[in-house]
Amino acid sequence: MKIEIAYGAALKVGDPPLQEDELKRTLAQEIAAGFKQLQVLREEGEVGFIDLPYQDLSSILQLVDQLKKDPPEWLVVVGIGGSSLGLEAALQALHPFLPSDGPKLRILDNVDPEKTAAVLREVDLSKAVVNVVSKSGGTAESMANFLVVFKALSERVGEYEAKKEVVFTTDPQKGTLRELANEHGFKALPVPPNVGGRFSVLSPVALFPLAFVGASVRELLDGARWMAELCEEKAGIENPALLLAGLHLSLCKKGKNIAVMMPYLTRLEGFSRWFCQLWAESLGKEGRGQTPLAAMGANDQHSLIQLFNDGPKDKMVTFLRVENPEEDVEIPGLFSGKETLGYLGGKSLHSLLLNEQIGTAAALAKSGVPSITISLERLNSFTLGALFMLYEITTAVCGLAMGINPFDQPGVEQGKRFTYALMQRQGFEREMEEVKRWHLAGNASLRLKEE
Amino acid sequence: MKIEIAYGAALKVGDPPLQEDELKRTLAQEIAAGFKQLQVLREEGEVGFIDLPYQDLSSILQLVDQLKKDPPEWLVVVGIGGSSLGLEAALQALHPFLPSDGPKLRILDNVDPEKTAAVLREVDLSKAVVNVVSKSGGTAESMANFLVVFKALSERVGEYEAKKEVVFTTDPQKGTLRELANEHGFKALPVPPNVGGRFSVLSPVALFPLAFVGASVRELLDGARWMAELCEEKAGIENPALLLAGLHLSLCKKGKNIAVMMPYLTRLEGFSRWFCQLWAESLGKEGRGQTPLAAMGANDQHSLIQLFNDGPKDKMVTFLRVENPEEDVEIPGLFSGKETLGYLGGKSLHSLLLNEQIGTAAALAKSGVPSITISLERLNSFTLGALFMLYEITTAVCGLAMGINPFDQPGVEQGKRFTYALMQRQGFEREMEEVKRWHLAGNASLRLKEE
Repeated sequence: MKIEIAYGAALKVGDPPLQEDELKRTLAQEIAAGFKQLQVLREEGEVGFIDLPYQDLSSILQLVDQLKKDPPEWLVVVGIGGSSLGLEAALQALHPFLPSDGPKLRILDNVDPEKTAAVLREVDLSKAVVNVVSKSGGTAESMANFLVVFKALSERVGEYEAKKEVVFTTDPQKGTLRELANEHGFKALPVPPNVGGRFSVLSPVALFPLAFVGASVRELLDGARWMAELCEEKAGIENPALLLAGLHLSLCKKGKNIAVMMPYLTRLEGFSRWFCQLWAESLGKEGRGQTPLAAMGANDQHSLIQLFNDGPKDKMVTFLRVENPEEDVEIPGLFSGKETLGYLGGKSLHSLLLNEQIGTAAALAKSGVPSITISLERLNSFTLGALFMLYEITTAVCGLAMGINPFDQPGVEQGKRFTYALMQRQGFEREMEEVKRWHLAGNASLRLKEE
Repeated sequence: MKIEIAYGAALKVGDPPLQEDELKRTLAQEIAAGFKQLQVLREEGEVGFIDLPYQDLSSILQLVDQLKKDPPEWLVVVGIGGSSLGLEAALQALHPFLPSDGPKLRILDNVDPEKTAAVLREVDLSKAVVNVVSKSGGTAESMANFLVVFKALSERVGEYEAKKEVVFTTDPQKGTLRELANEHGFKALPVPPNVGGRFSVLSPVALFPLAFVGASVRELLDGARWMAELCEEKAGIENPALLLAGLHLSLCKKGKNIAVMMPYLTRLEGFSRWFCQLWAESLGKEGRGQTPLAAMGANDQHSLIQLFNDGPKDKMVTFLRVENPEEDVEIPGLFSGKETLGYLGGKSLHSLLLNEQIGTAAALAKSGVPSITISLERLNSFTLGALFMLYEITTAVCGLAMGINPFDQPGVEQGKRFTYALMQRQGFEREMEEVKRWHLAGNASLRLKEE
């Protein structure tokens, strides 16, 4: 299985361009220091995501076997942010490899009432397992959806049976879900305490639902392990995570404040969204950070590319290519006398797609927009696992190299506290005064009314 | 039907904050001048999108009636960029109002072979109508998918019948699709020549497929007309499009280079993507433009919000709220002794969602990030039509006020020409030399291989 990281178009493009010796200096200094810190944090047991490929899968696989004995037709996963984005990315990327007669999966990743109601209408709860994922065990959106789904399930099969069909994925010691598991006998899988939500895709968070629907979680971990070991063994520019971290950091210093992730295969759309969370929440701190932007090839050539080429020179683009799709389609030679049709006949859709990627990268280079092209030989469990691990290490190293903590998220607390106050949660009365002060929206407003 | 644009949190937030007199000055000067230019362009017939609400729908509705006589079960739309984003936004927003027994719609908006193959497997082409949408009539991706689908359709029903089941939406005079319509008898609907792709959602581009699946295109146009007339009649800060254009332009001058669009209802996800194209392709020129970023509430509170609050102060956020969803779900009061569950019981999912929006806006204001909150009384055909027109006028005025042409897209041509060269299209031999020069990706690369 091959992966190539081509970065020629990240060098010598832009004004001023990044020079190879600058990149090497950044790698030898900040990036090497950041990597060293990460290794220490790993050795001390502070940071656990790199060790996830070595986990024992037996408790996950046993639970899947146990729950599938009387084959359930549905799995409903309740989770948001780090508890759903990795799973969604994996499901989308791996769908050609899932058994077509396996359980169907629905994710409640928001408290949009229309969405929750639609899932409750669609799913036959008497044939469903429910997986509630929250590391802290108290995330408001997931608690709300859990209560809604658990009540509907209890009404359908009785509370006693309902409790047997629910699996929590949460902290091994603390939090509301863990307490409920201890007090009411709900099943529960652990999220390792040293693995944060956005670094948890290779933990039971995504592995349980993936195994449940028949994905090869073993291969996913094998790919991640291969990448983790490569990143441990190789030095400097030969180390894929350090290379990517070095490119991002160096280009960021040259004013590339926006990091575009642009795959050329629909199955990688969810991966881009997963990357956006990882990058934004890990690095967006202390007034710093690079804003991630998910784009899709070829679609966004007809949308965002005008801005990328001719707008502010504040972007770098990472292209993701898959050399061998799981199927290809030949373009037939019809109406071939027409100039806009003739050249297409006999080629394949995928050859057009990959040539569009090259054409776009070349046009961006000509416009002075640097890019990286990552090519996967195929997109399967192994390469997806490798890609997850690659970007997790890249992100951690990048943050540590910048001198910020990539593992916390202090900037999400304020909004949560204001929401608790607005929802009249006890203990947040003082926040209510503050939220009134900062709820400025209506201080000036234009009201339009059609009679 | 009510729409409110609350902009109190766009003023007096940030460092330095935007003052009301600055906003009014921008409105009185650049924005007023831009609006005047737009009115002249409209009167001269150069710019046609504002007149779309007044179009005669009879040819669209007659064609729908004619094709639905022998009820087809499927509509396959082939289109990309401006030929698909508006349709996708409308389908998603209006799905609660579509007849559940109407034709099913699939969109081929990319040349991803796995996606096209999956649609061809799913759709029974003997019961399908195919709508190929390309204003120029020669877009590579849509031509390729047209050839693939037309061949499959011909194999299924014979070429003679196949031609009767295809509708082109294209320029009334020129381009390959128009020629094929004239020479082979394909049906064809016109895109007005003075309406560009990204401003074409209210033309036959989206109206034909929407009418085909049973959406109320009349109400969509009514809402757009209401908004167009409001924007014609009202002056300065009382004019919703001028107000929004003034806010964007003023905040852009204060370094807000990124415009986040963050709806709090899943049905508006497609609208955000439509907005991103409109904003990026219209304004991203001459080294200028504000980068649009689609976010989703509450999901991205667990993803991008850390960066918005604590990262670079280069963003402004527009929240979209819907006061009355089509259905709501009560959160039951279970396990109410637990602190993280008790406060939720008896509330509704939608009240949590809307309070999260307020909490998030208040936290952003406290962090110095300006925001605008647009509230729709409901999300239906009327308000969606109004929203489309509002942002089209806002975008056009903003571009003209900035002194750039919001109606062209010179920055997308180079990539197209390079792709033609790579696909060996005649007449692009010279571009092949250039694409070789700018295809820099592989000049430096790291190759990883697992044996």
